[in-house]
This record gives sequence, structure tokens and C-alpha cells, in this order.
Amino acid sequence: MNTLKYLLSDDALPTHWYNLQADLPEAMPEVLHPGTKKPITPADLAPLFAEELIKQEVSTERWIEIPDAVRQILLQWRCTPLYRARRLEKALDTPAKIYYKWEGVSPSGSHKPNTAVPQAYYNKLEGIRKIATETGAGQWGSSMGMACSMFDLECLVYMVKVSYNQKPYRRALMEAYGATCIASPSDTTESGRKILQDDPDCTGSLGIAISEAVEVAAQNEDTRYCLGSVLNHVLLHQTVIGIEAQKQLEMAGDYPDVIVGCTGGGSNYGGICFPFLGEKLRGGRDVRLLAVEPSACPTLTKGHLAYDYGDVAKLTPLVMMHTLGSGFVPAGFHSGGLRYHGMAPMVSHVLKLGLSDARAINQLECFASGIQFAKAEGIIPAPEATHAVAGAIQEALRCKEEGKSETILFNLCGHGHFDMQAYIDYHEGKLRDYEYPEEAIAMALSGLPSV
Amino acid sequence: MNTLKYLLSDDALPTHWYNLQADLPEAMPEVLHPGTKKPITPADLAPLFAEELIKQEVSTERWIEIPDAVRQILLQWRCTPLYRARRLEKALDTPAKIYYKWEGVSPSGSHKPNTAVPQAYYNKLEGIRKIATETGAGQWGSSMGMACSMFDLECLVYMVKVSYNQKPYRRALMEAYGATCIASPSDTTESGRKILQDDPDCTGSLGIAISEAVEVAAQNEDTRYCLGSVLNHVLLHQTVIGIEAQKQLEMAGDYPDVIVGCTGGGSNYGGICFPFLGEKLRGGRDVRLLAVEPSACPTLTKGHLAYDYGDVAKLTPLVMMHTLGSGFVPAGFHSGGLRYHGMAPMVSHVLKLGLSDARAINQLECFASGIQFAKAEGIIPAPEATHAVAGAIQEALRCKEEGKSETILFNLCGHGHFDMQAYIDYHEGKLRDYEYPEEAIAMALSGLPSV
Repeated sequence: MNTLKYLLSDDALPTHWYNLQADLPEAMPEVLHPGTKKPITPADLAPLFAEELIKQEVSTERWIEIPDAVRQILLQWRCTPLYRARRLEKALDTPAKIYYKWEGVSPSGSHKPNTAVPQAYYNKLEGIRKIATETGAGQWGSSMGMACSMFDLECLVYMVKVSYNQKPYRRALMEAYGATCIASPSDTTESGRKILQDDPDCTGSLGIAISEAVEVAAQNEDTRYCLGSVLNHVLLHQTVIGIEAQKQLEMAGDYPDVIVGCTGGGSNYGGICFPFLGEKLRGGRDVRLLAVEPSACPTLTKGHLAYDYGDVAKLTPLVMMHTLGSGFVPAGFHSGGLRYHGMAPMVSHVLKLGLSDARAINQLECFASGIQFAKAEGIIPAPEATHAVAGAIQEALRCKEEGKSETILFNLCGHGHFDMQAYIDYHEGKLRDYEYPEEAIAMALSGLPSV
Repeated sequence: MNTLKYLLSDDALPTHWYNLQADLPEAMPEVLHPGTKKPITPADLAPLFAEELIKQEVSTERWIEIPDAVRQILLQWRCTPLYRARRLEKALDTPAKIYYKWEGVSPSGSHKPNTAVPQAYYNKLEGIRKIATETGAGQWGSSMGMACSMFDLECLVYMVKVSYNQKPYRRALMEAYGATCIASPSDTTESGRKILQDDPDCTGSLGIAISEAVEVAAQNEDTRYCLGSVLNHVLLHQTVIGIEAQKQLEMAGDYPDVIVGCTGGGSNYGGICFPFLGEKLRGGRDVRLLAVEPSACPTLTKGHLAYDYGDVAKLTPLVMMHTLGSGFVPAGFHSGGLRYHGMAPMVSHVLKLGLSDARAINQLECFASGIQFAKAEGIIPAPEATHAVAGAIQEALRCKEEGKSETILFNLCGHGHFDMQAYIDYHEGKLRDYEYPEEAIAMALSGLPSV
């Protein structure tokens, strides 16, 4: 039989996360205090984050140990399978070899628990009682809710109001885990009340929901804030994906020529790519990285690399990142997890250093690719993940055109079982493509803070 | 670390299905022709089913080889993990050991593809072009749709109208796989038109949808019918679950004292139980089997063991099974997959021989158990699967009361990501328990055919 799947035993679960900061040819820009605009100190961040997470955020140690209690939980669904997409290759009639790492086997159906579990663990260890966080479509909120229930932490999730109302099912999952879910903007925070005063009908944004969660954490001693993407420590936790994929491709006797991931905040992309990039930076094999983002929120391909806030109320530290401006509100396309104005500073830095490519793909092509994938491979991807699928298919068709048998690896970061409304809308012809107008982006960028 | 998970390598994927008919102390009753009421012949069934499936239906061979092409696809998500539910054990403070087999990792999120794939395979092999089938909540229809897309077969699914309208997401999944989904009763069949004539607002039932699909298959030479449960060959295909679980428990150094499964048509229950039961019947270790069904559709605990039709229009053969009468329409409880008037003849036979216990549990307890499970183990079960969870928890609490450290194995046959509306209704207090009134059952049973 032709091998379809590469499985690892529990022994192969990584014992350490890989920290790209150890191998970067140029150090990451400093993070600035939102008030003083001077470099931030760990003490400044202490009211928001668990101490260990702050350490990880700035660490340049190459390998950071994964605590046993965290590994014990990750082992429930890890190591995740690596698949050779033989049926898709055949459907595309491509000489390329396509592999995908399947993160949808986690209990919440995406890669998010990889970081939710350690974040809950460190907070519990440091005596924290409650976590405040935000969520867009709900993948992160439900994963954090699950992790909190496992460590007996309270969990408060600010969910972007439009999703709260339109997508009750992810919310129901959070509530099943015992989390409290509040539609954002809400009247429970100063940031929320201010927004509602100006616009009572505001349907919210990730940037607003972050402001609310950060505010709650800052004002309550027993509460800390958790974020599901963007930050260095989040990308660090996701590197289990890439480390496993390295071992699995070794089993397959292959090495990727190109690695494709979708980018919203950048965590699943960093998770699969950085261990390979680290190898390359330490003198190992070359590999091309390809970040695929939605045309409707083109952070990497049309945003600026600049210091910006992570939220609307400007409560977060200033980070150097690709951004469309913290006030940017993307059009209503169907990948809630990719609707963020900024991008992980590490992914932005890697792009700046010329170590990654980026490409924007419109949603009609992404859904068509998602359906082609489902028909061949059986798995229906989350709308976010269809961007990676579309990128991988583009690469496979390029290989066909060029007559090259390259090896393509992509991260299939979650299943679409919660997102079938998007597929219905696609089938009924209700979705349209959306190129964000240059003027709108220019306007959003004109509001970037001066530092 | 305490082991949580027992994984098998690809080599351990069963090469043969286990056929309980080889070891039954008393042969299964014959199947009767719906017209003549005489024992049915393979030729009678040929217009409906692929030949190989008819052979498997009546085979008494103990081990039936799984074709390589089928194993190649099953390997995508099999062998599925077996988990020790240590966190649930702790939450229950029970001396019992609880293991669960996790079937929700398949692309459609349940155990159904285990039989959808071989059914599609054999039909393709025999030159069939199109499959007609029915589905209740949609787990089966989406699994059959997936299998058909993999073997390039057309797929026509009659979906119970109330689910078609209320649960568009499973339907969208079928359509993503390229299947055609029709609300049943429909005007595309004689059976459907007759029902609609009598009751234009009829919201359908599984028994009606079966009539429509069977009719289409019977009338088109290039079309065959497929069923997702009840039949012997379906239960046969599901035995991969139990065969794997045997190997995994051996790894764990344990053997079940009791095995719990939920029963609608009986396939996931038979799948996990029969390989163990076979061992016992061949002189191996004793094991108690416990079938858990919904109180609102109490086929095993309140139905009769009698010859009955599988459908409303009385087109199917007559089989000896536990039944509430083919005209029985269960109350609108939230486990679409368990709303069937009949029960697998093999499960019925096993019950009659005293080889299995059966218990009905009401839905409020099932949902409470599902949520307790999700909080401890992270996985939110499908409403159907919560019946197995509730049964396992009852057994674990019994062990606690009796101070016994029994080993409990249950089948967690699917995830609840498509079923969050049921959890919302539960949280909002909209669900109620439902004991089907004895008179209603008596009336339904009074219509049983005389043979």
C-alpha cells in the first residue's frame, strides 16, 4: 500500500518548544510601553500575563521545556497525524508531493489548544484564579475554555458581538466547558462602554474585544489575560506542530521545498514553519515559506511594518508588526480567525528579513479549494484553513506547469464542522470576493502611532 | 506519567472484520420476503444491495477479509485512539477504571465512515453508478456522501424533512461532498407522494426516508441502496472498533468487566461489543454488555421482539428484531441518530439470548453527563454518544457505591460539533424528559405484521 499517514508514538511528543528568537540573524525589535513609548519591562507586563509567559515572550533560549503536566494533556490528541494527500495529488494531476499536518483532531477542532493548555497551566501554577480573553469566531475562546476547565480556572471570554449573535454554536461550546461568554462591546468595561456611547449598535471587532479583556485583567489582581495568537510565546507553543512534522517527514523520507500556512495572527503558520526555518538558519536545508492571508484583510501584503497597538483602546504594548492600523475593520468575509488588523511580530520580522513569502487569496478561490480538498481527502477545512489549502493547490499547479516534483507541506489547522454556514453561503452564491480598497488601507494606516 | 491514550500503529488495523454469526449459540432467525413472507433469497435482495454485501449479510464465516482499498482509506483516521478517562474518574471519585474508544476523529466526526467506505467500495466494484440512502440527523448521509466522493459514485440522500429544515449544516456537509440531499417525504417517489397526499405537512421519519431510498434503488438498475445501521453487514464493518479496542486494552493490561454503547440502530454498539462477546462465546473471559437507549425511543426495553418492517411503506424485508412498530414516531428528542423504531436483528438476538443488558436513560441525564464529560475530558460528545457516557457514569458510580474497581469500556461514537443547538436548548432549560406512554407503544405494536 502507498502510505497515507505518518503517525508518531507518544514518546515522540516534543519535550521542548522551539524558540526562533535563538536563531534569528537580527534580533526582534523591542516592545514599547503604550504610555511612555519606552521599552517595556517584565514588571510592566506582570499585571497582564503569568510571569513564566512573560519570560518566554522575551527569551532567546533555543529550546524551552514543556512541563510534564502540559505534555500529559497535549498527549490526548498529539502527536497529530501527517498525511500525504495522494487523492488530492491525483485529482490535481500534479507531479508535486503534498503533505498536510492535521490539527483538527484536538477536542475543540483546531490547533488552538496547543497554547491554551500551557497558558492555563502557568496561570494556575502562579495562583491565578481567573482568565480573561477575547475571541472572534470562537476557536480560541472554546479552546481556552476547555483548558481552563481542565485546570479549574474561571474563564471570561469577550466575543465579538457579530459572531456572538450569528455563531451561537462556538459560544455554546465555551459554555459547555463552563466559561462565561460576553458579547463585545459590552457595558462591563470602560472600553466597552465608551465604544457603545459613541455607537450603540457597534457589532464589535477583535481589537475592541482585546481592549475589554485586557482591562479586566489589569484591574483584577486574581485575573490574567491570555491571547490566542500574535505573541511570541503563543507562536512558541505552536512549534510542536512543526517539530512533529519534521520527524514525520523524516519517516516519509522527504523534506519540504515549500511550507504553506494561513495567517491571521500568525500562530499556526509560525507553529509549522519556525522549526524548519530554524534548521535553515543553523545551516540546514533551504525551505521556502509561504504565508497565505485573505485579500479582505491583507496585513502582510498591503499593511505597513510599524509600531502599532494590538487593540482599539490602545491599552496593549506597542509592537513592531505588519499592520493595517488598530482601527482597521475588515469587510465581513467568512474567516473570523483571520480578521485581525495586525500580524505576529515574529512573522512580520521573518518577512522583513526575506525569510518568508506572503500571498493574499480571495475567498471564492479558498472555498472552491476547500471543497476540492473535502471531495478528495474527506476532511472539510475551516474557512481559515482553506487559505492554506488554496495556497498549497496553487503551488501544486505551479509544479505541474513547471514539471517539477516539489514537496509541499501545509498546515490544516482546523475542521469546518462549526462553519458550515459559510459553505452554505458559498454554495448559494452569496459570497463575493473582496479586495480591500487602497484608500481605506491608506486611511487606516494614517492613524498609526508615532513613536 | 500516567498513560492516557493507547495508540496502535497502522499495522494493527484489522485485516478482517469479525462476524458474530459464527459464534452464536443459536442461529439468527431467517429474514422474510415482505410479499410472500417466506424466507428471502439473495436474488430477492439483488436489486437493492451489492452482491458482496448480501453475502456478508448471511455469512457465518468468522473472519471476513477487509479489502486493501478499503483499509487504505480507513487508515486515514484508524486505528482510532483508546483513552483512559483519568480526569473523569477523578471527577467522579470512582475506584472504577474508565476507558473510551474515540470514533470522532473520522472526517465526518463519527463511526459511520467505517461502513460507508466498504459499502461504497463494493458497489463501485460491481459497476453500480449511484447510491440511494436515507439519513436522520445527517451523520450517516454525510459519511456516505464522503465515501461516494472517494469512489466517484453519485449519492442521493433522503433526509428526514424536520432535520433537513432544522439542521442545514450536516446537509451542507453532504453537499460539499457532492451528494444530492432531498427532504423526505418528497414528491420524487411513490412512497413519498402517497404520504404527502395524506399529510402534506408531514415532517418525515427515518422509516419514510428508507421507503423512498429503497424505492429509488429498486427501480433503477444502476442504483443500489445503502443503510447506515441495523443490518448484519453494517455491524460487521463496525467490528474494527472492538477489535482495535481489544488490542489497546491488552496494551493497557486490562480487560473490560462491562462494555457500554448507545443504541439507535445498533451498529456502534455491535461494533465495540461483538469482538469481546465472540471471545466470551469461544470460552474466553466473561464480559457484561450494556446497551443504552433513549427513554423516548425505548426499542430494547419496551419494544417487542417480532418480525417487522424496517420502513413505513413496508418495502423492506421482514426481520426479527426488537421494535416499537414500523409506524412508531418518537417524540422530538435531541438524538436524531437514535430515533428509529427498530433495532439491529443481531443486537435483538443477543439480548434475547441473555448476552446483553439494556437500559433506557432520559435525555436530561444524558446531556448532564455529556457536559460533565466535556469539562473533564475536553471532548463534547454527540447527543447520541451522551447516552453511552451516561451509562458509563452510572456504572462508575455503582462501582463507587459497591467499592469495586471494575473496568468500564465505552464507545464514544461521535463529537457534538454539529449538535450544539441541543446543548443550547439544554442550557436554556428547553429540553424535557420523555417517557413514551405505554398506551402509545401498545398501539404502535398492535400494528405488527402477522407472519
